[in-house]
Amino acid sequence: MRIVTAGESHGKCLVGIIEGFPAHVPLDREQINYDLWRRQQGYGRGPRMAIEKDEIIILGGVRGGLTLGSPIAFQIKNRDYENWQGYLDPWGPIKSGREVEQPRPGHADLAGAVKYGFRDIRNVIERSSARETAVRVAVGSIAGQLLALFQIRAVSHVVSIGQVQLKERVSDFSALETADESVVRCVDPIVTEEMVQEIRRAEREGDSLGGIFEIRITGVPIGLGSYVHWDRKLDGKLAQALMSIQGIKGVEIGDGFQSAKNRGSQTHDPIFFSQEQGYYRLTNHCGGIEGGVSNGEDIVIRCAMKPIPTLTKPLETVNIRTKEPALAGVERSDTCAVP
Amino acid sequence: MRIVTAGESHGKCLVGIIEGFPAHVPLDREQINYDLWRRQQGYGRGPRMAIEKDEIIILGGVRGGLTLGSPIAFQIKNRDYENWQGYLDPWGPIKSGREVEQPRPGHADLAGAVKYGFRDIRNVIERSSARETAVRVAVGSIAGQLLALFQIRAVSHVVSIGQVQLKERVSDFSALETADESVVRCVDPIVTEEMVQEIRRAEREGDSLGGIFEIRITGVPIGLGSYVHWDRKLDGKLAQALMSIQGIKGVEIGDGFQSAKNRGSQTHDPIFFSQEQGYYRLTNHCGGIEGGVSNGEDIVIRCAMKPIPTLTKPLETVNIRTKEPALAGVERSDTCAVP
Amino acid sequence: MRIVTAGESHGKCLVGIIEGFPAHVPLDREQINYDLWRRQQGYGRGPRMAIEKDEIIILGGVRGGLTLGSPIAFQIKNRDYENWQGYLDPWGPIKSGREVEQPRPGHADLAGAVKYGFRDIRNVIERSSARETAVRVAVGSIAGQLLALFQIRAVSHVVSIGQVQLKERVSDFSALETADESVVRCVDPIVTEEMVQEIRRAEREGDSLGGIFEIRITGVPIGLGSYVHWDRKLDGKLAQALMSIQGIKGVEIGDGFQSAKNRGSQTHDPIFFSQEQGYYRLTNHCGGIEGGVSNGEDIVIRCAMKPIPTLTKPLETVNIRTKEPALAGVERSDTCAVP
Amino acid sequence: MRIVTAGESHGKCLVGIIEGFPAHVPLDREQINYDLWRRQQGYGRGPRMAIEKDEIIILGGVRGGLTLGSPIAFQIKNRDYENWQGYLDPWGPIKSGREVEQPRPGHADLAGAVKYGFRDIRNVIERSSARETAVRVAVGSIAGQLLALFQIRAVSHVVSIGQVQLKERVSDFSALETADESVVRCVDPIVTEEMVQEIRRAEREGDSLGGIFEIRITGVPIGLGSYVHWDRKLDGKLAQALMSIQGIKGVEIGDGFQSAKNRGSQTHDPIFFSQEQGYYRLTNHCGGIEGGVSNGEDIVIRCAMKPIPTLTKPLETVNIRTKEPALAGVERSDTCAVP
Repeated sequence: MRIVTAGESHGKCLVGIIEGFPAHVPLDREQINYDLWRRQQGYGRGPRMAIEKDEIIILGGVRGGLTLGSPIAFQIKNRDYENWQGYLDPWGPIKSGREVEQPRPGHADLAGAVKYGFRDIRNVIERSSARETAVRVAVGSIAGQLLALFQIRAVSHVVSIGQVQLKERVSDFSALETADESVVRCVDPIVTEEMVQEIRRAEREGDSLGGIFEIRITGVPIGLGSYVHWDRKLDGKLAQALMSIQGIKGVEIGDGFQSAKNRGSQTHDPIFFSQEQGYYRLTNHCGGIEGGVSNGEDIVIRCAMKPIPTLTKPLETVNIRTKEPALAGVERSDTCAVP
Repeated sequence: MRIVTAGESHGKCLVGIIEGFPAHVPLDREQINYDLWRRQQGYGRGPRMAIEKDEIIILGGVRGGLTLGSPIAFQIKNRDYENWQGYLDPWGPIKSGREVEQPRPGHADLAGAVKYGFRDIRNVIERSSARETAVRVAVGSIAGQLLALFQIRAVSHVVSIGQVQLKERVSDFSALETADESVVRCVDPIVTEEMVQEIRRAEREGDSLGGIFEIRITGVPIGLGSYVHWDRKLDGKLAQALMSIQGIKGVEIGDGFQSAKNRGSQTHDPIFFSQEQGYYRLTNHCGGIEGGVSNGEDIVIRCAMKPIPTLTKPLETVNIRTKEPALAGVERSDTCAVP
Repeated sequence: MRIVTAGESHGKCLVGIIEGFPAHVPLDREQINYDLWRRQQGYGRGPRMAIEKDEIIILGGVRGGLTLGSPIAFQIKNRDYENWQGYLDPWGPIKSGREVEQPRPGHADLAGAVKYGFRDIRNVIERSSARETAVRVAVGSIAGQLLALFQIRAVSHVVSIGQVQLKERVSDFSALETADESVVRCVDPIVTEEMVQEIRRAEREGDSLGGIFEIRITGVPIGLGSYVHWDRKLDGKLAQALMSIQGIKGVEIGDGFQSAKNRGSQTHDPIFFSQEQGYYRLTNHCGGIEGGVSNGEDIVIRCAMKPIPTLTKPLETVNIRTKEPALAGVERSDTCAVP
Repeated sequence: MRIVTAGESHGKCLVGIIEGFPAHVPLDREQINYDLWRRQQGYGRGPRMAIEKDEIIILGGVRGGLTLGSPIAFQIKNRDYENWQGYLDPWGPIKSGREVEQPRPGHADLAGAVKYGFRDIRNVIERSSARETAVRVAVGSIAGQLLALFQIRAVSHVVSIGQVQLKERVSDFSALETADESVVRCVDPIVTEEMVQEIRRAEREGDSLGGIFEIRITGVPIGLGSYVHWDRKLDGKLAQALMSIQGIKGVEIGDGFQSAKNRGSQTHDPIFFSQEQGYYRLTNHCGGIEGGVSNGEDIVIRCAMKPIPTLTKPLETVNIRTKEPALAGVERSDTCAVP
């Protein structure tokens, strides 16, 4: 299955093509739009989120709510495009006077401008923006509807924001599904309140915060991925997919970094068998993946997202034209798909 | 560039092909063999390490010490093969009586046997074994010799073993290169001694330990990887390559999981410019990658390795033939490429 | 560079994404639209061609007429969609009573219906239709504008239609560029007239014709493609790209099938050198590719297109629901990109 | 499934890795060696063929005659290596005085030397040599043993050599299997004799000949390949695989180039159905592939091979060092896998 995405943050639209998706899979448009809406929520979201109300428009590969086996193509319109057309029109002319020349630390701005030799960093910003994750959310929603046919379901929730963190690991899938009721997607109402305070504190100081979220996938059969070749290992593939999300700086599976501190006897999950359950475990330190293959337990992954680079106290930078010191622009980056 | 590997742990040999490698690159055989030897070192290595003394044998793609642009093929012989031939001969017959039926928790054993329907878990063990990393070390050594032509160099060192950890981040490249002098590859002699004690303690208790290692790559130009597509991002590619190594459960870049706890003002690296240095930073919280693109600073990555699953106190498991409870076999897994 | 296409023949639109295209390439919209228009010409085109007037709409990757290095996404609207919406709406409901149940010989109809288990062959027709080549023409036009920066240009012309064929090989590039002036894209006005007669004759008899076209690419440097690996060979890649076009049943390079009849001394092109020209040849039997690598001469390829399967005398087939004999439907397939 | 090959023509060995091959497939070593032996036969083969007696040596992925699901790695030794070691040793030193400086027309020699900047064309010859097809034959034999489990079998035979050709299309699979009894692999004994005379005639005149061979694959189910995306079409994939074989200049499926001359009513294969046979055809003009998908009939492909470029009357060329006119070297190229 190939996933190819395109589109600029303030261009006409975002586009995605899923090639290799099976035929006969029923898709629920409301579910996809709900997932897109969910991406746009989150405590303290910026003004861009108020402008965009993302909706999937299928361009190919789906007929009467069923996939055709043909490539699934879709677009998500950028409502903000009308304000930007003069600056981003594919065929031009491009109005001058609004070039971005001050790369924001923490973004691809400088590296992108140097790599491609751009004088207007807007060319980088438009594609490196976290708004691109809207396409990935739509792809994920469609893929999730395929997996749901096999009773494989995923949930995600926020484990920490700044210094505030959930005290205990919650492994009950239904409990985790309640996370959406929290403004910060934390399953614990008290910790939710602390997180909100933590965010307010940072805001007052013109600063920003990151956090850690956890993904739990249940219903996974034994045997997804394979140990036979390095690039077939399920943990490696998930690590790439997640680390490539804007703002992610760390990925761990199961006990992750903690397992490097624990003893072997605390880390490996003894194997049991019963007629009713087949093979099963009483623990899940390995996060559902052993040797690069799913072992039938829930897959559990945590990702660390760094604080949003846009601060009200702007960071020091350099003008790429004049090479003079400057303050990073206040381009409000669209924050990432906090799950 | 394509990297394809093959070979069983106790089969005739391991094999690798690097397709797409440029022509005219001088390769140093001693460097590759040194890197293979280095993989086999480490405090408390098992008896297998004493048997194997890995050496690269080039089968194609190199002539007179120069690459030809043709695919580079090589093998690394398994000296232990002569003891295993009757059990692993490609054409058989296979001696019976030594089938592995007790999957080891923490390995691909159970998932692999279920996925492929094997009755002898040896079929899984032989390929999922960490001995496969010998091929990756050879590939890495060859790739490193290409990168060295561009003054890009990598070093790795051990940051923690069990509960013992290096107190401070060491960012001086030359200092890190001294890590090989330590039996546990830690740059601090006092911490080295503590790590050795930690290992002895675990051993006495029939237990095992994992640890965290750090990779630092210096001389990286601005612009490797790209933000334009999710699967071109350098951080994602590195995460896959590292997470797919046997025993790795976590990967973080720069401040990684810590950056999820810090403020934005502590996390993003202000940009400066001087005629001599070009663009530069005074900090490197992002670990040399912003927006999926190298930013010219050192790339810094940490990986968490779980404890080796082979314990003298064996773990509970199940016989896959009888489905009766059992104790995990004492197959000594070849431990992974601790850097 | 990755080329991914999507879209149904009578759906909302066709979509393409070109991922990996370089930045800073100037694109000419008129050229792309001209190439799309050219695809729709040809003597004896069906009514569908009158409905559609294809135009590229860039969705991403281009700004002010310059590529951004970001994926180039585009769509081509199907004007006919409004007549089909009730039958092809992504979300439905789908009107019944117009299911296609009679697979047309010569199309993917039967194989597609069996492969995917469709009861309505429309699901196959919509994607297997030669209208998909509109996306490839747009991709080709964009790629051609990149190649033109390096003075690499391609032309194509019709060599034969049915039994009528051009008597002599024309190798002058400028002469070939005049082919567009012929209604059947043949460089010779007399042969053009004979071809038109040949088509009329077949039409009168309710039959259809195929033909052979030739592509000539000039300005090609020595060294495109490589002999080092089977899937890097330029001839193999071109053969796949061309054979995958709807209706193509044969591909040959240079003297092609004739070279299997000729002697070696008539087939290989002696090598010469002069200060002005560098290496050059006086003959080009090999069609510009030796050992899978371009040799600096014009690349010359011929492709055989079978007659359009839609005849006024319909072909025998079987109803896939009733399994009763039937006559193939008169669905007018959009004919392929005759060059 | 990935197929990666490596190895030089007179180097230590040829190497292949098949990654993604299923587990539990029984492999027959004698069949593979027979297929390798068969590659080396053929009327008028050169002296190299007498030196090499190819045999497969499995390096990984097979145990007791069964595949493991792990990558299958193998080597084929070059017996001639001992005579070449001083010139081709991976680590050198390389004896001087035997550099190849006169590129042979019809080979990758000149293009390869220019592309990679080699002064010794031996670096090109060693990899571009048709001896590389030995690896492909082994891969094909292994793949064929998998397909045989599904009753899919392939045969090939020679249709023409030079001007002499088989008069009629032979479509009986068993009859085609007798082709191996002919010294030139032609099913007709009289035509065989004419072909031998044709070869002798060319030899006497210091010239060489090419020919056309046909591949027939029987037992193919409906539905291999797909019309949904250009690079999933079975005809395109086969065309690439075949055109990338050394010496092949044309590929056609079914009636191929002839279908461009015939009428539609002669070209498309009407569809019938019976309870016993399911869907079937009485004709097979399309060669078993419609719309890029197998249609259940035999797949029939013809390939044109140009004459071997090595002539006793040497061709004109240029010395790449001196740029003086020269005669092409008499390096006997290993002729290709005539089927």
